[in-house]
Amino acid sequence: MDIEIALDNMGLRLPPPIKAPAEVKLPFSFVRVQGGLAYVSGHGPQNRDGTIAGPLGKVPADVSIEQGYQAAKLVALSMLGSLKRELGDLDRVSAWLRIFGMVNCAPDFAQQPAVINGCSDLILALYGPDRGAHSRSAVGMSSLPFNMPVEIEAIVAID
Amino acid sequence: MDIEIALDNMGLRLPPPIKAPAEVKLPFSFVRVQGGLAYVSGHGPQNRDGTIAGPLGKVPADVSIEQGYQAAKLVALSMLGSLKRELGDLDRVSAWLRIFGMVNCAPDFAQQPAVINGCSDLILALYGPDRGAHSRSAVGMSSLPFNMPVEIEAIVAID
Amino acid sequence: MDIEIALDNMGLRLPPPIKAPAEVKLPFSFVRVQGGLAYVSGHGPQNRDGTIAGPLGKVPADVSIEQGYQAAKLVALSMLGSLKRELGDLDRVSAWLRIFGMVNCAPDFAQQPAVINGCSDLILALYGPDRGAHSRSAVGMSSLPFNMPVEIEAIVAID
Repeated sequence: MDIEIALDNMGLRLPPPIKAPAEVKLPFSFVRVQGGLAYVSGHGPQNRDGTIAGPLGKVPADVSIEQGYQAAKLVALSMLGSLKRELGDLDRVSAWLRIFGMVNCAPDFAQQPAVINGCSDLILALYGPDRGAHSRSAVGMSSLPFNMPVEIEAIVAID
Repeated sequence: MDIEIALDNMGLRLPPPIKAPAEVKLPFSFVRVQGGLAYVSGHGPQNRDGTIAGPLGKVPADVSIEQGYQAAKLVALSMLGSLKRELGDLDRVSAWLRIFGMVNCAPDFAQQPAVINGCSDLILALYGPDRGAHSRSAVGMSSLPFNMPVEIEAIVAID
Repeated sequence: MDIEIALDNMGLRLPPPIKAPAEVKLPFSFVRVQGGLAYVSGHGPQNRDGTIAGPLGKVPADVSIEQGYQAAKLVALSMLGSLKRELGDLDRVSAWLRIFGMVNCAPDFAQQPAVINGCSDLILALYGPDRGAHSRSAVGMSSLPFNMPVEIEAIVAID
């Protein structure tokens, strides 16, 4: 329960499952566990009621870099919410391995790392420099579902 | 042979290896097996003769969402064709783990899930809700090789 | 030491750790090792002094396909440099498994494979057709950090 205590101490709360618009079918698993690894689907930023959190649109025209950083932090919380529901206990994550950070941005935007740091910083703050260490890419996408500014997928090792 | 019987019952046929334009060199493996996992390269939609299947271009300007859905289904068949050649028997796939769905689309397109569902729906229909369950991202790319509307890569567990 | 001897025979040298602009924070691991796999972060082309190598920009407007091919080769060297620092010996890489090649390009560019071949060709030349074989995607991104023309991430098996 250490990770959840840490989240609580930071004033952060895990969101419920994503509430996508009714007409959208998402026939996949948000976390898929096999062979000591959990494959985490692409997640977006959520409000506390589970809906997709704004601001929506592209960085930096519609969403500032600082807002993008906050969105990436919300994406980390969304992934942690899915991991909690799948694993029962976030302390079962023994190592973060891969974070693939996708930024919905204009063709001339080149500061994707500053956005995806919102996710990396939270994971490192929660899990520490050993368990929290992760490989990462932070790249620019033409567009993302629901016009989200950030989507992130991950692979973690579990006990 | 259960999966191939199921494919046959659906009237679906696995395509032969991709026939890319002669000047294009593809010096990689379509499936790479190691440690109980098969890493599946990015695949595109194929015709029954192995050539790249149209319609080509961007969703939704050149390729409708419904056509994109059908293209994603063809991509699933292309991946299954490669897995069959590599593994000998599609029943050796014990679990689908990760599907990374890339849609060639305009910067304002936000319905990538509706396109990539063409792949997810077929995998779930063939492998069922346990073996077929998979993590997934469905995202928008600036462009794709050969101007394909959809490209998908995957990781699966094998017996 | 065979791989490093081969690099030397090719007149190639591994770059030092990336020297990113001072204001950019990169709080992740360039290589993350767990369970016999090394997850390699997204890397870019480097100069011999560790700085990001030009030409920068989009393929083919700012960077020709041939220059993109050379950039992808430099990315392979950058990944090898990170693997050498993490593993101590590049011969510990027993199999290349997945290469995800991202090209910073215009929406109508469709020759991503010709660019990413710069990476695949070097890996195959160094590691040979068995250890060097890899699954691959080569796709078009809206934009990349630092306006790099190519970024590549990978997964390799290690002894």
